[in-house]
This record gives sequence, C-alpha cells and structure tokens, in this order.
Amino acid sequence: MKSLIAASLLLLGVTASVEASHNGLALTPPLGWNSWERFRCNLECDVDPENCISERLYAEMAKVIATEGYKEAGYEYVCMDDCWMSTARDAQGRLQPDPKRFPSGLKNLANYVHSLGLKLGIYQSMGLHSCEKYPGIAGHIDIDVQTYAEWGIDLVKMDTCYNLGKEKMIEGFINMSYALNHSGRPILFSCEWARAYGGPNFTEIAEYCNSFRNIGDIQDTWDRVLSIIDWFAENQAVLYKATGPGGFNDGDFIIAGDFSLSTTQAQSQFAMWTMMNSQIFLSSDLRTLDPEAKAIVLNPEILAVSQDKLGKMGQRIHKESSFEIWTKELVGDAYAVVFFSRATDMPHNRTTTMKTLGFPDASGYSVRDLFARKDLGFFEPEKILSVIVDPSGVVVIKATPKTRVKKGFHGNNNKSVIKN
Amino acid sequence: MKSLIAASLLLLGVTASVEASHNGLALTPPLGWNSWERFRCNLECDVDPENCISERLYAEMAKVIATEGYKEAGYEYVCMDDCWMSTARDAQGRLQPDPKRFPSGLKNLANYVHSLGLKLGIYQSMGLHSCEKYPGIAGHIDIDVQTYAEWGIDLVKMDTCYNLGKEKMIEGFINMSYALNHSGRPILFSCEWARAYGGPNFTEIAEYCNSFRNIGDIQDTWDRVLSIIDWFAENQAVLYKATGPGGFNDGDFIIAGDFSLSTTQAQSQFAMWTMMNSQIFLSSDLRTLDPEAKAIVLNPEILAVSQDKLGKMGQRIHKESSFEIWTKELVGDAYAVVFFSRATDMPHNRTTTMKTLGFPDASGYSVRDLFARKDLGFFEPEKILSVIVDPSGVVVIKATPKTRVKKGFHGNNNKSVIKN
Repeated sequence: MKSLIAASLLLLGVTASVEASHNGLALTPPLGWNSWERFRCNLECDVDPENCISERLYAEMAKVIATEGYKEAGYEYVCMDDCWMSTARDAQGRLQPDPKRFPSGLKNLANYVHSLGLKLGIYQSMGLHSCEKYPGIAGHIDIDVQTYAEWGIDLVKMDTCYNLGKEKMIEGFINMSYALNHSGRPILFSCEWARAYGGPNFTEIAEYCNSFRNIGDIQDTWDRVLSIIDWFAENQAVLYKATGPGGFNDGDFIIAGDFSLSTTQAQSQFAMWTMMNSQIFLSSDLRTLDPEAKAIVLNPEILAVSQDKLGKMGQRIHKESSFEIWTKELVGDAYAVVFFSRATDMPHNRTTTMKTLGFPDASGYSVRDLFARKDLGFFEPEKILSVIVDPSGVVVIKATPKTRVKKGFHGNNNKSVIKN
Repeated sequence: MKSLIAASLLLLGVTASVEASHNGLALTPPLGWNSWERFRCNLECDVDPENCISERLYAEMAKVIATEGYKEAGYEYVCMDDCWMSTARDAQGRLQPDPKRFPSGLKNLANYVHSLGLKLGIYQSMGLHSCEKYPGIAGHIDIDVQTYAEWGIDLVKMDTCYNLGKEKMIEGFINMSYALNHSGRPILFSCEWARAYGGPNFTEIAEYCNSFRNIGDIQDTWDRVLSIIDWFAENQAVLYKATGPGGFNDGDFIIAGDFSLSTTQAQSQFAMWTMMNSQIFLSSDLRTLDPEAKAIVLNPEILAVSQDKLGKMGQRIHKESSFEIWTKELVGDAYAVVFFSRATDMPHNRTTTMKTLGFPDASGYSVRDLFARKDLGFFEPEKILSVIVDPSGVVVIKATPKTRVKKGFHGNNNKSVIKN
C-alpha cells in the first residue's frame, strides 16, 4: 500500500502533509461537479434527452468543464450520482450501467473524461439498495471496487440508504476504504457515513474517508443553505480537529446557477463553503450557467482560500441575530475573514479591527477584498475597517501580516501593499 | 364632489367603470416606486448621501423612471415613505420635511416630479406618530391634507402605527378619504387600514381607499413572498368581491433587483402580484438595477395582465404541496394562467387542458407564453398543454378564445392564430 501512496503522490507532485491522508488524495478540498441537485433521477431520455441521467449528460458536462475555464480553476471530478445503474447485477454479480442510457459503457465514459484531463466519480450506497432503489453494495464491496478500478473510476461517493444497521454500515465503510486503497488505482472516497447516525467520531471517519457528509441533502433553497451553515458553526469545535489535508467536510453541493439563489446569496454560499472546509462540488447546468454564477464559482481568490494548503477549517467567531463573522487560518500566517449578513432589510455598515478579529501580528495586516478584488489598505491592530454588507450577502477579506508581505507572500499585490 | 370626479375623469380620459371608484383614480392597479423596502429609514446623509432618505434620492429615482423606460411602461407614482419629515410640526401646526435632507421643500420636489410627467406620493400614519416616530396625522387631518394639496402631492400612503384604537382609526380613514376628495386635487389614497385589525370589511374599505394593504410588510426574502401569496389565496373569496376598478389589493413591494430573489423568483413574485390584483410598487435601486430584474418589471405582456381593465382578481384554482395554478379573467373573455412551482429540486413537466382550467369557450383558445413571449398554438378544450416549470418559478400564459381572436381582440398575434 505504501508504494501505491508514494506513486500517486509522485503523480500529484505532492511532498508535504503526507501523514494526513490515508491514500494521498484530497490534500486540499476536492473540486468538481455532480449531477444530483440539478438533474436528480431524471430517467426521461425519450422526452428530455438533454437532461436525463445518461452518458450524454456526463460527457457534455465534462466537455464544458474542460473547455470553459473550470478545469483551469481546479475543478477536476465529474461525478455521477444515483440512477446510473441497471436495475440488476449481471450474471457474474457485477454492477452494470443502464444499457439504454449508457450504451457506450462506463470504461468508455471514463476514457473520454480522462482524455479531457478530468476524473470520473461514481455513486453507490452502503446498503441493500441505493436511495432510488438500484442495487446497493452490501455483500459486494470487493467485486464492485474491482469493477470501478477496471472502468477507471477516480472517486466513489458512498451513500447510506437501505443500510443494514450502524455496526454493519461502519464495518462496510472501513472495508470499502481498505478495498479502494488496494484497488491498484487512486480512488477518492467521499463518504456519507457521518450523517447516518448522530454523534459520529469524525476523527475516526477522517482516517478512512477523503470527505464526509455530515448533514442531509441540500435543496435548492436559501433556507437550506442557512441551516447547513448553522450546523457547521454549531459543530465547528469537533470538525476543526477532525478535518484537514486528506479528509474534508462535505456541505453538499454548490447551487449557484440553479433556480433559487440570488447572485448575492450564491456568493455567500460559495464563500461559506470555503470557510467550512467543504469539498466544492457544483451541481448546476454548466452548459447554460449565467455569467454571474460562473464568475462566482471561478473566482480565483476565493478558490485560493478553499485550496489553502494548511487545510484549516474556518470558525464562526462572532454571532448576532442577523450578522456573523467567520475567520480561517491560511498559510503564511494570513487569515480569511467572512462578514456575513442575515439581514432582510438593507445593506448595513460593519466595522472591526485586526485586534478585534484576534489576529496576532502587532505590526498589522495588509487587507484585500476578495470578491471586489481590490486592496483595502494596511491596518494596524486598532485601525477601523469598515465594510458594507448586503442583505444575505458577504464581504470576504484576506489579511496578510506585514512581515509576510515584505517577504513576498502576498502574491501579485506586493507592490501596492509595500507602499503603505 | 361630483364635479371634481368628472373633471379628473376627463383629465384621465376615462369613460367606463366610474361607479367603481369614489374619486375616479386607480381604475387599474397603481404602478410606481416607493423607497421603503430598499432604503428604509436611512438618515446617514453625511456618510451615505446616495442612499439616505432625501430629496436627492427621490429626484434621482424619478429621473430614472422618466428616462429609462419605466414611465413608458406605465409606472407613474414616485413615493416617499417614512422618515421624510422634520421631527416637529411648524408654528402653524403644519408638517414640514426635514430641512437638511429636503432643503428645496416638497413643493419644489413635486414640481420637479411633475415636470417629468410623473406623480409624487407621500407617507403618513393614522395615529400619534409614524412607525419611525415622526409626527402622525391624528388630530391634523384637515391641515395635513391642505398642506399635501398645496405641495402638489398625488398619493398618500396611510400607515396605522401608534393609532388611537380601532374606532378612532376607522373614523380617521373615512375622514381622510373625505378630506382628500375635497382637497381640490386628485390624490390617490393608499391605505393600511385593513391590516391593522383582523377580519376587516374589505368591501367597506374599498369604498374609501384606492388600494389597501392587508398584510404586514414584505421583507427581502423569498419566504415572505411565499407567505404573502398564501395569505391572498386563503382570502381570495372575500378579496375577489371587494377589489376592482378604484380599489385594489396591496401585496406590498416588488423586490426584484434587491438582494434575495433569484431571477426565477423575481419573475414569480411579479406574476403573482399581477394575479393578486395588487398595486405594483417597485422598491429597489433603479439607478443600478440589473438587466434581468429590469426586463421582468418592464415586461409589457405581464403588465398588460396587471392593467387589464376588467380589474378582476385572480384565484388559485389548484394546489398541491409544491405546485399551484392561478387563473384571472381578462377583457375579451380571455384568461391569464400562472403555473407556479414551489419545488426545490428540479424543473417539472406539467400538463393541463383548457377544459381542466375551466375555460368555457367550446371552440378553444389561442395560447401565448407571456414571459417567453411566444405563441404556443391553438388548444381545443381537451388538447394537452405541457409546460416545464422551474423550481420556485412560473409559466404565465394568456388564453384568448377563438371567437375573439377572429374579431381581432388578440392584438399583434392575430395572423398566426387565425392560421390555426
């Protein structure tokens, strides 16, 4: 196993944080796309061929990801969700895709996705059936993992529908992790283990899974986004310790570009998922994504916060009824800060200082607004920083200490900052 | 009084539905803009001069309404809300605007608004104070109405904060209506009378008010939009009888272009307010409105449903947990239909027929999609009509009977329809 990890790490060009990952994968939160939130279990290929769960859908989305800026931004996993299967295993007990909707087979689909420089994810449930009643993996872990490896699968999302009880489910996830790590192929393991039972041991889960869903599914509503943010805030003390390189949270999908979030709200979700140390899987129709949503999910400065190599989860450090502040430690003793409004009336002015935020460098910080993409100036510990936060909106800043700025850690803002 | 009504009707060029209006105004639902939802009681002119409640704000918004397509679409009232006043009446007991924020005075502001071909609305409360604690109208109805008329005010929005009890409040609204109708000036009366106490007599209210708020304030959230829609559906039997030319519902402001509605949801609110027979008052920053929101609120085919001269309130005729259908009678035996999804997952296909919708013309209807702005064809009573409705979205159609189409009632779609 060690040689496989070493090999995959070499392929990835990774030399640090090896200890933190059981399989060398997900050293930063995985980035990709998954069909579920937007396309669900749409089987109506006869009347809705563009949007049904089929090889066409995944191939088209992979093409967009590869050619319209997503791949360059870091998105690499193209993930199938439920409903890809035939309703029965074959004579040898192997899973097979629905022959009508996936006529070319999954090995061919994986080859195509790989030819674009991307990776293919698949879905299964640690139980007798998937949530939509397709065959589950119970009793078939070895043969299914072998099949995935033969097809060239790069990620398995493991649900928990129709599981056989807590003990068997836990055993299954551990066995699955072992099987994936012995499959001869680096396969990222995205688990819903944590959400199936209350009070799980997240630190144990992180030993076996590269990401873990702790909550029920997201839906296309702002209320659900808010309730997920609240859950992560309420559990941040435990999750802060459990997550990091190799094992990240999963707040479920980014719904920017679906139907229910305003541009303001879509910015907020994207920023908050970044702070929550969540994997970032889009689930909208990228073929027709509006420019505002695309600009949000491709924002390089926000994505840099998500992909920060420290892998530290952000934490809510301040909470009022309609306003909160989150901070996240970044490499180079820098910090990301999200000012998040839950107001429903009008934009409000908010003020703080580096000292109030708890940032320790006594010489002060250079501050940049990451969505506005402009420098806000240099702030000694007690200098007032004012931001206007829109209802249901965020302002995201990055604070870089003066000492690091001088050493060149501030990237392309060096010059303007050193002037201050 | 009769001569005044006759004069104002002549000015308006109105000859029908006179009986339905006590003052000849609001023969279709009033269209305009009001500052409250977006700008609230922002008094910070020193630090936020563009957005504080001041003559600058109303003059700038009037200019946009007059020059950027809103006036042509029918929007005519530019309405101040709370916080325009000085904190005390003058030595003669007259209201006065805050001298620092309205240095030119309201007569000058009204003159400017009139010079743009628009009308100016003002706010007051039927009580001791306004909601934000500025002077209320209690005990001052005659002098205040005289002041409004001298300034050239065209609409009064009457709130109910700090009122002196149900009896005195009702008496005040009736006296106010009388005073306005004897002011020597046509002044539209927009009342919150109905919402102050449960179980009001809407038919009585409609005798005195040109529009009536029945509900609490809207906020910048989709949930609040949904709850307002539900209230109107639950009370549609009573409101259908009470509303019509001269007295319309008030669902509070259109929030398209604020911060919390997606484009899909903004379309839905606009369509539903039209069906609910509500006045249509925008409350967003029109100076910076995004093109999607602007296209919604200027959609001529939806506005035509709002401004239909029959003035019949639409009704919810079908309800499932996440889907409903509303219909509204229009002139020429036509109907508007809104298919409204409350789904939070994916777009769903919905089918119906003219017969199922209850439309009586046995020869069938020509059907047009008003947001897509395309004809869908001709539908005999049992021909299936399929529409795809997005989560939190609407499809709005207009069904025009064949007989009327032949007589030329279908406007610019005559030719294509007659072919069918």
